[in-house]
Amino acid sequence: MTSSPASTKSAATPEPPRFADIEAAAERLAGQAVLTPLLEFPVLNERLGARVLLKAETLQRTGSFKFRGAYNTISRLSEAARQAGIVAYSSGNHAQGVAAAAALVGTPATIVMPADAPAIKMQNTRGYGAEVLVYDRYGESREEVAEQLAAERGATLVRPYDDPDIIAGQGTCGLEIARQAEALGARLDHLLICCGGGGLTAGCALAVSELSPDTVIHTVEPAGFDDTARSLAAGERLANAPGASSFCDALLGPTPGELTFEINRRLVADGLVVSDAEVAEAMAFAFRDLKLVVEPGGAVTLAALLSGKLDVAGKTVAATLSGGNVDPETFCRALEAPAGL
Amino acid sequence: MTSSPASTKSAATPEPPRFADIEAAAERLAGQAVLTPLLEFPVLNERLGARVLLKAETLQRTGSFKFRGAYNTISRLSEAARQAGIVAYSSGNHAQGVAAAAALVGTPATIVMPADAPAIKMQNTRGYGAEVLVYDRYGESREEVAEQLAAERGATLVRPYDDPDIIAGQGTCGLEIARQAEALGARLDHLLICCGGGGLTAGCALAVSELSPDTVIHTVEPAGFDDTARSLAAGERLANAPGASSFCDALLGPTPGELTFEINRRLVADGLVVSDAEVAEAMAFAFRDLKLVVEPGGAVTLAALLSGKLDVAGKTVAATLSGGNVDPETFCRALEAPAGL
Repeated sequence: MTSSPASTKSAATPEPPRFADIEAAAERLAGQAVLTPLLEFPVLNERLGARVLLKAETLQRTGSFKFRGAYNTISRLSEAARQAGIVAYSSGNHAQGVAAAAALVGTPATIVMPADAPAIKMQNTRGYGAEVLVYDRYGESREEVAEQLAAERGATLVRPYDDPDIIAGQGTCGLEIARQAEALGARLDHLLICCGGGGLTAGCALAVSELSPDTVIHTVEPAGFDDTARSLAAGERLANAPGASSFCDALLGPTPGELTFEINRRLVADGLVVSDAEVAEAMAFAFRDLKLVVEPGGAVTLAALLSGKLDVAGKTVAATLSGGNVDPETFCRALEAPAGL
Repeated sequence: MTSSPASTKSAATPEPPRFADIEAAAERLAGQAVLTPLLEFPVLNERLGARVLLKAETLQRTGSFKFRGAYNTISRLSEAARQAGIVAYSSGNHAQGVAAAAALVGTPATIVMPADAPAIKMQNTRGYGAEVLVYDRYGESREEVAEQLAAERGATLVRPYDDPDIIAGQGTCGLEIARQAEALGARLDHLLICCGGGGLTAGCALAVSELSPDTVIHTVEPAGFDDTARSLAAGERLANAPGASSFCDALLGPTPGELTFEINRRLVADGLVVSDAEVAEAMAFAFRDLKLVVEPGGAVTLAALLSGKLDVAGKTVAATLSGGNVDPETFCRALEAPAGL
């Protein structure tokens, strides 16, 4: 990647990906990632008085969008790097994406996961053939554990979001949203994106702002983990206060990524915030009316729409359903929520 | 419809629909029915050593394919017939399809439903604005209750499957399967169809045998309700023995339809049969690995594939997931099945 003369970043921060990097990632992913459908439901359109298009990354290989960035990154490794293996840290979806991509590419993977990650995410990560090392989410820094491990083994660290290849890979999701919307004759007024570290947001924002520049882009986060919403409002990266909790296990990062926020501060209008109760209602709605299994972190966009966080009446809106890896116990508890039925 | 000179049917049996009737139904349904995706999952392909394409009618308006036939029929009613209203009998999916189609067309609908229909099906049917009359599944003939009601009110009876317009409407599902498979570059070796009275089977068989004549077509039914499998083997319509039970509430008809069986005996190779335990495992697989909510009757095809009822190794197979209207309690019980996780 070439350096822009106007760049003001420190030497340690890599250059953000460009639109062409997302197109290149799409070519790499062809035949490996699923071209997930952009779904439309009369029942949802009628409820919101809007045209709503849901990008079902729940149906992606490994059950979340994370495979896109992982495969885009890992498939570009040199033969020597493949032989040395890879290390990643993740609450679960990046873990599965990395494990599956590593298996396809033929490189050994070790994933550092929190002890309280959903069982389905840990089982699947092992199922794809990765070694799983467990750390204490509240006592250790996963970055440090993973960096030390990678250094010891001479392995490549595959970061979850703050990396140009990861962002470009996740951007293929946005590329598909823009092209699928166009094929449906839909001009997108708004795009809502589930946001943790901001990799999916940054990639989708780069793609959609290029192909559909009038689309207003919003992140959605769980209450207590609204670092991106507050950072966008403040114009600088802010951290979450310690001690918050949410069942949106995929979206519990401490702060926006450095590289992702550099992109998102330019391209994202604002951040919406939803409560766990609103997320549970959205999961129950997705079960009952859409027949889709959506995990808590993947349902925040639908929760924002259903709870009226954005006035979308008469508008055309796309939203990511970013993943569906949820344990049956958690899923069935969400279906029992008071407002669920 | 014109009568064929070679016809040997009684005067009471209408002429079966032809391929052109399915094409005409597709034009009527455009913009009203959802063009549901034909989904492919690496995890399923790898498990079966086959290429499997799932037609997700779970994502259809009203949560099942039944809207297709209902709208095709009801949208053709004369103004006078629309004003007189319609009557239907159904265990739930036809009820919702008819209720939603009637609301779109603007005709009053009364639906006769069994007292033990899933709550979600009864709620949704009322939610679309239909009047629901409850009958005792084990004590009364739903056909007689509905026919008497229609006669009293001068209303049109919209039958669940044994009707040319209903079959042509359901056939649009097969039309889409054949065209979507072709667009994916897939030549279908097998097609598996969830079978109750045989309307979806007959419609899909008419469409797919026209567009993909080498595809071998199979029905799938729950054990104890394998009337079509046995009828296909015997070459004549056989009834189910009384007293059987299954949680596949959508597939509990007593016997193949007259018109549907006339079509299916010509175009369907054979019938596969699955147990409720195999269906529950398939529902859990769909939850865990496909992130799809599938109701028991809609999961019989997936159950047949996962339990090896057909040797599909190396083949390309399409299967209908015919509906997703399942109560949370039933769904969550299926996820708890011993082999489920």
